[in-house]
Amino acid sequence: MPKIIYVTGGARSGKSSFALQIAETYTNRVFLATAEPFDDEMEKRIARHREERKGKFLTLEEPVYLERILQNLPEGSGVVLLDCLTVWAGNLMHHFGTTSEIDRRIDTFLDQLSRVFCDMVIVSNEVGMGIVPENAMARRFRDIAGIINQKVASTADEAYFLCSGMPLKLK
Amino acid sequence: MPKIIYVTGGARSGKSSFALQIAETYTNRVFLATAEPFDDEMEKRIARHREERKGKFLTLEEPVYLERILQNLPEGSGVVLLDCLTVWAGNLMHHFGTTSEIDRRIDTFLDQLSRVFCDMVIVSNEVGMGIVPENAMARRFRDIAGIINQKVASTADEAYFLCSGMPLKLK
Amino acid sequence: MPKIIYVTGGARSGKSSFALQIAETYTNRVFLATAEPFDDEMEKRIARHREERKGKFLTLEEPVYLERILQNLPEGSGVVLLDCLTVWAGNLMHHFGTTSEIDRRIDTFLDQLSRVFCDMVIVSNEVGMGIVPENAMARRFRDIAGIINQKVASTADEAYFLCSGMPLKLK
Repeated sequence: MPKIIYVTGGARSGKSSFALQIAETYTNRVFLATAEPFDDEMEKRIARHREERKGKFLTLEEPVYLERILQNLPEGSGVVLLDCLTVWAGNLMHHFGTTSEIDRRIDTFLDQLSRVFCDMVIVSNEVGMGIVPENAMARRFRDIAGIINQKVASTADEAYFLCSGMPLKLK
Repeated sequence: MPKIIYVTGGARSGKSSFALQIAETYTNRVFLATAEPFDDEMEKRIARHREERKGKFLTLEEPVYLERILQNLPEGSGVVLLDCLTVWAGNLMHHFGTTSEIDRRIDTFLDQLSRVFCDMVIVSNEVGMGIVPENAMARRFRDIAGIINQKVASTADEAYFLCSGMPLKLK
Repeated sequence: MPKIIYVTGGARSGKSSFALQIAETYTNRVFLATAEPFDDEMEKRIARHREERKGKFLTLEEPVYLERILQNLPEGSGVVLLDCLTVWAGNLMHHFGTTSEIDRRIDTFLDQLSRVFCDMVIVSNEVGMGIVPENAMARRFRDIAGIINQKVASTADEAYFLCSGMPLKLK
C-alpha cells in the first residue's frame, strides 16, 4: 500500500527541507510544484528552489488541477513530493473565488490521492495561529487552507509538525 | 474530583470537533457558547454550529459573565463544553476596554472554575504565532488571550494542542 | 561541554517564564537582553521584566552585537539567558536593512555561541504561523527570524516549544 507522509509547519519552519530529506530516501522522485509566480519575489524563490532540486527530481508544475498530475505520473515513479497545499488553497481561491467549485476541487484531489501508486510526501503550512485577519478574504483563505490541511492530514499514514526546524510527530 | 480538559489550536485546526468528540462521551451535556454575533458572517457560523449540536447539548450563551453559568448549571449536568476562551477575551476587551476590570473578570472565572461539580472541556485558540500586529489593540488582545490560555491551561488535568486536525498531548 | 537549551513559542505562550525557571536552577546568572525600547509600551514592558529579575540576574543589554557580550562574560558565569532571538532579528533588520551584513552577523553569533564556556538558555518566538503578511518587510522579517530559529535550534542540546504555558519537548 502506498504511504502518505504529511509535513506541516509555519513559514521558514524547515518543513520543505524536512520533506526533501524524506523524499531523497527514494529513487525516481517527482516534485509537484503548486506555486505560480505572481511577482519578482516569488519568481526568485521558485527559481532558487528549482535550482536546489536540479538533477534530483523531475519537476512538474500544476497550480490547480493536481489530480491530473497524479493520474498521469511517469511509470516507475518512486515518490511524489507535493509542495504545497497552502499555495494550492490560494490558487483555488484565485481561480474560483469563494464558490462551491473549491469544495469540488478538494474532493476530486482527495479521491485521486487515494489512488496514487507510489508514496507521497505532502507539504502544507500552518496559517491560523495569528490574530484573526481583518480582511474577509484572508479569513476565507485561512478557512480553506485549514480545511484542506485537516482532510489531507486525516488520510496520511505519518504526519509531522515542524517547529524551528525540528519535527514533532503528530501521528 | 471533576476534571478539566483544555483544547487549543489555531483557526480551523479541528479543536472544536476534537472537543465535541470528548464531550460526546458524556451524558447530560451543556454547551457554553461565548460568541456574540457582530455581523452576518458570525451569525451564520454560530447558527451552523448550533445546528450541528442540536439534540446533543443544552446550549447556554454568555459572552462575559461565564461564572454565572457555571454557578447555575442544571442539576445532573455531566459535562460542560466551553467554546471558546479567545472569543471571551475579545468580549472582555469590548465590554471593559483595557482596564483592570478584565483581570478581575478572569480571576472570578478561575475561582468559579475550581468549584464546578462536573467535568469541563474548554476550547481556546492560539493567536500569538504570527508577526507582531501593528495595531495596539490587536497586541493587547493577543496579550489577554495568551494570559487567559496560560492561566486556564495551568489548572487543567489534560491539555491538547490541535494541529491540522491532529491532537498533540501537552499534558 | 556547555549545554544550549532553546525555548520557543508564540507571544504570551509562557516561554520567557519557562526559560527563567530553567536559568534559576543555576548560580551566577547573566541575562542578555536584546530589546531596545522604541516606544512607551516597550519601555514599560522592559522595565517590568527588569524588575522581575532584580537581584537574580546580572543584566547585560545588547541589541545587535551579541557575540561581544558572549566573548566577555564575567568570569564564573553559570548560565546566560538570552531573550530573545526574534527581537534581535528585528534589530538586525533595523540596523542593516536587508543586506548580506545580516547573514554575516548571524554567522558571527553562531560561531561565538559554540565557544561560550557556560550553559545558555536561548528564547525565541514563532512568528510564521499566521497568514502571509501583505507587507514585504514583514515577510522578510519572518524569513530572517525563521532562519535564525532553525540555525540556533539545530545547535541546541535541548529544545522546547511552549504552547499555552506548557512545554512540548522538541529534542
